[in-house]
Amino acid sequence: MKIKVLDTTLRDGEQTPGVSLTSMEKLRIASKLDEMGLDYIEAGSAITSEGERNSIKEITSQGLNAEILSFSRPLTKDIDYCLECDVDEVNLVVPTSDLHIFDKLKMTKDELIEMSNSAVDYCKDHGLTVELSAEDASRSDVNFLKSVFLNALDHGVDRVCVCDTVGILTPDTSFELFNNLRDINAPISVHCHNDFGLAVANTLSAIKGGACEIHTTVNGIGERAGNTSFEECVVSIDRLLPDFSTNIKIHEIYDVSKLVARLTGVYIQPNKAIVGENAFAHESGIHSDGIIKNSATYEPMTPELVGRRRKFIIGKHMGTHGLDSRLKELGLNVDKVQLQQICDNIKELADKGKTVTDVDLQAIADNVLEINHEDRIKLEDVTVVSGKKILPTASVKLIIDGEEILNAGVGIGPVDAAINAINSLEIFQDIDFIEYHVDAITGGTDALIDVIVKLQKGDRILSARSTEPDIIDASVKAYISGVNRLLQE
Amino acid sequence: MKIKVLDTTLRDGEQTPGVSLTSMEKLRIASKLDEMGLDYIEAGSAITSEGERNSIKEITSQGLNAEILSFSRPLTKDIDYCLECDVDEVNLVVPTSDLHIFDKLKMTKDELIEMSNSAVDYCKDHGLTVELSAEDASRSDVNFLKSVFLNALDHGVDRVCVCDTVGILTPDTSFELFNNLRDINAPISVHCHNDFGLAVANTLSAIKGGACEIHTTVNGIGERAGNTSFEECVVSIDRLLPDFSTNIKIHEIYDVSKLVARLTGVYIQPNKAIVGENAFAHESGIHSDGIIKNSATYEPMTPELVGRRRKFIIGKHMGTHGLDSRLKELGLNVDKVQLQQICDNIKELADKGKTVTDVDLQAIADNVLEINHEDRIKLEDVTVVSGKKILPTASVKLIIDGEEILNAGVGIGPVDAAINAINSLEIFQDIDFIEYHVDAITGGTDALIDVIVKLQKGDRILSARSTEPDIIDASVKAYISGVNRLLQE
Repeated sequence: MKIKVLDTTLRDGEQTPGVSLTSMEKLRIASKLDEMGLDYIEAGSAITSEGERNSIKEITSQGLNAEILSFSRPLTKDIDYCLECDVDEVNLVVPTSDLHIFDKLKMTKDELIEMSNSAVDYCKDHGLTVELSAEDASRSDVNFLKSVFLNALDHGVDRVCVCDTVGILTPDTSFELFNNLRDINAPISVHCHNDFGLAVANTLSAIKGGACEIHTTVNGIGERAGNTSFEECVVSIDRLLPDFSTNIKIHEIYDVSKLVARLTGVYIQPNKAIVGENAFAHESGIHSDGIIKNSATYEPMTPELVGRRRKFIIGKHMGTHGLDSRLKELGLNVDKVQLQQICDNIKELADKGKTVTDVDLQAIADNVLEINHEDRIKLEDVTVVSGKKILPTASVKLIIDGEEILNAGVGIGPVDAAINAINSLEIFQDIDFIEYHVDAITGGTDALIDVIVKLQKGDRILSARSTEPDIIDASVKAYISGVNRLLQE
Repeated sequence: MKIKVLDTTLRDGEQTPGVSLTSMEKLRIASKLDEMGLDYIEAGSAITSEGERNSIKEITSQGLNAEILSFSRPLTKDIDYCLECDVDEVNLVVPTSDLHIFDKLKMTKDELIEMSNSAVDYCKDHGLTVELSAEDASRSDVNFLKSVFLNALDHGVDRVCVCDTVGILTPDTSFELFNNLRDINAPISVHCHNDFGLAVANTLSAIKGGACEIHTTVNGIGERAGNTSFEECVVSIDRLLPDFSTNIKIHEIYDVSKLVARLTGVYIQPNKAIVGENAFAHESGIHSDGIIKNSATYEPMTPELVGRRRKFIIGKHMGTHGLDSRLKELGLNVDKVQLQQICDNIKELADKGKTVTDVDLQAIADNVLEINHEDRIKLEDVTVVSGKKILPTASVKLIIDGEEILNAGVGIGPVDAAINAINSLEIFQDIDFIEYHVDAITGGTDALIDVIVKLQKGDRILSARSTEPDIIDASVKAYISGVNRLLQE
């Protein structure tokens, strides 16, 4: 059976505290989602602000394949704003728990049903498709919930939705609730929150209980602990629920995840399923060994399925099989004794609490193989002057192939100036500076700063790192150590 | 029923690619876990390295209440290393799926059982308690799985464990598998991985199916998408499974989460359940309004339960109720018209894609209230000289209460020098610089840098931000704008 997917990244997702997207950013996300096969896109909440309405209008004017919705309370002024934005549908949110009706709305249950029915009438009179979402449905009296739904259906509502507003369902209670609602005989969708880490599981159970549509957000962003994660849920349906499928192009999942992370600024933890940096990375010896023999041993799906690639990481848990294949990638052939020696030396470094980069690995291998690489570039000095009224300017003194070279550069900040002072020299012309990354700095202004650069020369890509209390120093050292490695054949 | 908890943060968790802990760090985590009531702590894998063995020995020598385990393959050399570390127990990991036995170990099933039995005999002969973990149990023939378990139990194994090594169980199949294993009549534990985002749900289902012990890691760290998250699982048992409980002191969960995040460097995404920065943060108007009336409307538990506090965030989805209470906290009383005006102006700022800090809010409120705060401190100039052979040195020219002040400072980096040049002036003496945060910088060396500082004067704490391409500029501006606000009454 085909399950429809409603994306609410632009509404529930944008409600993530601190997140605010521009019209242009919302449009980019909506277009990408549409391209991936989403059935419904909730583009925002028209009542929120003028800017929000402009964003929604921009999206509805594109002629996308997905149906476009706005969130709306069951109030005429909210619905009028939705009409102004020319949406196809509204997501009409009506609270159904005693707590929400009495404590928040300060209404009676009869008044609530009356309000809900009138809002549905008003929407239908104005030609809108309506999904009626029962807010806090999971803490509502199920008979009252049914009566709200049946009333709305009598008034012509198109679909109804059960919201687990504070995420208190479990897979068992979710199944029971949806199974119990089968007798209302209407298309039901499921909207879960992740306060206990159960949103994806509860959504899958709802599907088994009879839900035919799911609400998700990319990367699971949203209020508090967020909503059902789009990527985890869609891939789980595809791989783990043989009787169900969706219209989503799964191999584009990593792309949309990165796009949303970048535009919202809500980063993804490395151990996030499917889209986290480590989801297809392997370090331990037992795992790497297994993966090399048959990738299914330690991977439930191929990384390519979701648009990704496998990575082997060098570290203390690594075994000799994984290490050997990484060394071969770097062009180094070693015998058994050498391999063990390199492995031991890496573990010794890692026991000190250090992450091991490609440059560390090569330095250790060179040492064991008694290869003497003279670094072609040595940093003698770097000096930076920067300030409010001063164009950030750097001078460097390098020894390149034994010859002393002086150079200077300017930039938009002191680090940029220092890198530019180095970059313009001829020996750096073949090097592409692919990525500059500084881990978040927390604590005081005297914290150690960890700079990692990713560099490319021809086909070779490598990472290098430096950790210093001075960000300029760290950046320059990481850059030069990486370049020295790339200049060796 | 009491469920026992085995923590494997120091083994599975440390296998997170790139993570490596020192002995001292491992000991700190183990002590904290012990204090929180963990029943079992898997301290590492003794075979890994000399440093790893020293860490385990350090932990076993502390006389902690928790039983201390080491991971071990069913090989004499692994077990000998465990004995050397003086652990109470071993976690003996024996693969049971055809894939792992044939493709990885290249053995027959009879040989596997023979190896397993001998290893158990060797452990028991040496006085070790043994938990036998069936690796890839969820993809194993269940009759063969039972026969491995029954053989091991005949040889005196103390507990058995079912591992969902690549995270392919669902809540339904997890329940079925454990329910099916009830007839082996031994204590069974559950070890889940999070490749589809289902580890916590599958662990809860296993408990319902008969598991009496769970394996978890703090923050769910581990290989690939990690393991069952300790905090999500333990809080779910406490809140959502009325028939079960654990020995864990739940109100210390946030502390241990932060400790592990800091020591491993594996950051937590803001929308992570229970421990994410936003798990108890509210921005949207509807939610903040509900929370103020009755916090249960939009919170499934009080933040205090897990050692946290609630936060209201200023942003475009905020309504007037939440805004009013934030303004009151900042000491500003406004009427209805002013409140609406402030709200509109904030939404206008947020529509441009900006996060709104306390200082932004106050500037907007001042404007609406026609309060003219003259900033007491104006930055006229800042100049920094830094380099490999130069002590980072900064000079500043400030206008403080109309008077021109010059000062200089040194630091361990250029930002530190600039802040020190300002800090030593008398007017800054009452200000505590609580936190300095720079978001991760990715892209090029010319990326915009977002600095947020948190400052305190007496009881007042506020955040201020500046975004500039120059990290020194951004740091100094954020600091001075925050101090100006704190100096106003």
